[in-house]
Amino acid sequence: MYSVRELLEITESELASLAYPVSPDGLYAPMRYALEGGGKRIRPVLVLMGCNLFRESVTAARPAALAVEVFHNFTLLHDDIMDHSDTRRGKPSVYKKWNENTAILSGDMMLIYAYRLLNRCEESLVPRLLDAFNEIALGVCEGQQYDMDFETREDVSVDEYLEMIRLKTAVLLGGALQLGAICGGASAEQTELLYRFGLNIGLAFQLQDDLLDTYGDPAILGKPVGEDILAGKKNFLLSKALSMTDENGRIELLSLLRNQEMPAADKIAAVKAIYDRLDLKTITEQQIAAYFGNAFHTLEVLDIDSERLKPLRELASGLLNRQK
Amino acid sequence: MYSVRELLEITESELASLAYPVSPDGLYAPMRYALEGGGKRIRPVLVLMGCNLFRESVTAARPAALAVEVFHNFTLLHDDIMDHSDTRRGKPSVYKKWNENTAILSGDMMLIYAYRLLNRCEESLVPRLLDAFNEIALGVCEGQQYDMDFETREDVSVDEYLEMIRLKTAVLLGGALQLGAICGGASAEQTELLYRFGLNIGLAFQLQDDLLDTYGDPAILGKPVGEDILAGKKNFLLSKALSMTDENGRIELLSLLRNQEMPAADKIAAVKAIYDRLDLKTITEQQIAAYFGNAFHTLEVLDIDSERLKPLRELASGLLNRQK
Repeated sequence: MYSVRELLEITESELASLAYPVSPDGLYAPMRYALEGGGKRIRPVLVLMGCNLFRESVTAARPAALAVEVFHNFTLLHDDIMDHSDTRRGKPSVYKKWNENTAILSGDMMLIYAYRLLNRCEESLVPRLLDAFNEIALGVCEGQQYDMDFETREDVSVDEYLEMIRLKTAVLLGGALQLGAICGGASAEQTELLYRFGLNIGLAFQLQDDLLDTYGDPAILGKPVGEDILAGKKNFLLSKALSMTDENGRIELLSLLRNQEMPAADKIAAVKAIYDRLDLKTITEQQIAAYFGNAFHTLEVLDIDSERLKPLRELASGLLNRQK
Repeated sequence: MYSVRELLEITESELASLAYPVSPDGLYAPMRYALEGGGKRIRPVLVLMGCNLFRESVTAARPAALAVEVFHNFTLLHDDIMDHSDTRRGKPSVYKKWNENTAILSGDMMLIYAYRLLNRCEESLVPRLLDAFNEIALGVCEGQQYDMDFETREDVSVDEYLEMIRLKTAVLLGGALQLGAICGGASAEQTELLYRFGLNIGLAFQLQDDLLDTYGDPAILGKPVGEDILAGKKNFLLSKALSMTDENGRIELLSLLRNQEMPAADKIAAVKAIYDRLDLKTITEQQIAAYFGNAFHTLEVLDIDSERLKPLRELASGLLNRQK
């Protein structure tokens, strides 16, 4: 059985051994740049972990782990264009370093490359892996579309927001475990339970992100807090706040967010004061704890030795207690 | 055995029966718009035809035919952004009708959708189909990258140009026949021969396009001639002309193309005069005929009854003799 650390090392060595075609350089250099640019590698580690629950060796899941990481980086290339994000992991994003066309086409190529990697898995598993992968990938696209749709809407409900992050973020974390479990020879029921575990962890992970944006420590986060507030982003705290206030409170909050003249620090403080009044920190923490509770409950249903689940528990708990 | 016309009808009815998810509309409406927007449907017909050479029924190839058409339309969505093409088949292109983000994301989704369709083929064939499809798709991306690279280069050789159109255009036509043949149960050798046939037809098809841009009849074409000349596009005629002239001729031709003050009609006439002097119409026609010769030669090697090959010959000859 591998530890989280060992699975991370396997992931990095697999990524380092990926063969990139040399030509056309304009197509493959951005892929190398994106994949060598770091990242937490949570998704490929989850793939390997999903496999390792059922098999001593994770060799069978290596191509799927790479496929998931390449897919994830493809979404970042395209999302950064759509969201006008100029930096990624402290470096210029691909569309900034090169240009939009490069980010579009290299991203397309990475998506295709992900499928190519997937097809290196054990042949008899390919149709099932492909089916799972397609549903995951479509979910992620749908999530990104809802996220963009929400930018121009002021009536996003909490349920709509949760459905959006389920698609955009959680499905890929659940899907990573699902693909790994398939490679490991898990039953359909076990695979489904692991998918649900990852889904709940993913939802908790995103709410944690939303919480840290307002209540995190900028020194630990490595970036200023309140970015979602300044961008008027419909995150969990905002959609929850809007659902809890009456019409006057709603108008007050929305006009605060729309106010372009107010100094940034004042705006963040004013919105935070509303969130404090509504006790949103506690409410969000409770919601996160509920998702974690759901997640760990599915692990109990899973007929796997508790010792074997340790790395998965360790990874998930690390995400729950993170400060950045 | 089906005629070209019958295969076209099957394609249209399959496309009409494609189930589009309803939500998010911003993601799926552009897909419907693109796929219902017409087009010659050559590629899906080639898939069905490839299958029909080996089987009476083309049912086994229907999902692959749709996958190829959806893939082709995905490339159009993204290419139109990259090439700033505002219209497509006489209607606004997706990025013009909606916006760039929509065209990026809907395109991504269509690419994934193509893989989903491919996975509806006979399960035992999926790994082989997926392998072929991935190589085709990567080729098309590489071709698009070379095409964009060539925009800023004045030293594109004839061989480089031919390699670019092989990737960007011909690989998908050859690949369509290849996928169909796999669905039809063809041997590896038969599949390879059909791929080569399609590749040569594809090369001829693109050179025909290049030829018509200068020597076509605008009344039949439905668009003005000389667009490539005005855009300074490195098509076959231009790269061939540059390879045939000495340094003075080269400078003359390039400065003509760069000249932004010259009236369009004069510029086209002047470049055409150079092409006439070099007898490029004949040279291009000979090259097209050579590709057709190669293509039909591979059909002879193929151990298939001549009667069965009629629809394929008919389709290919239609492409050779086209005036638009």
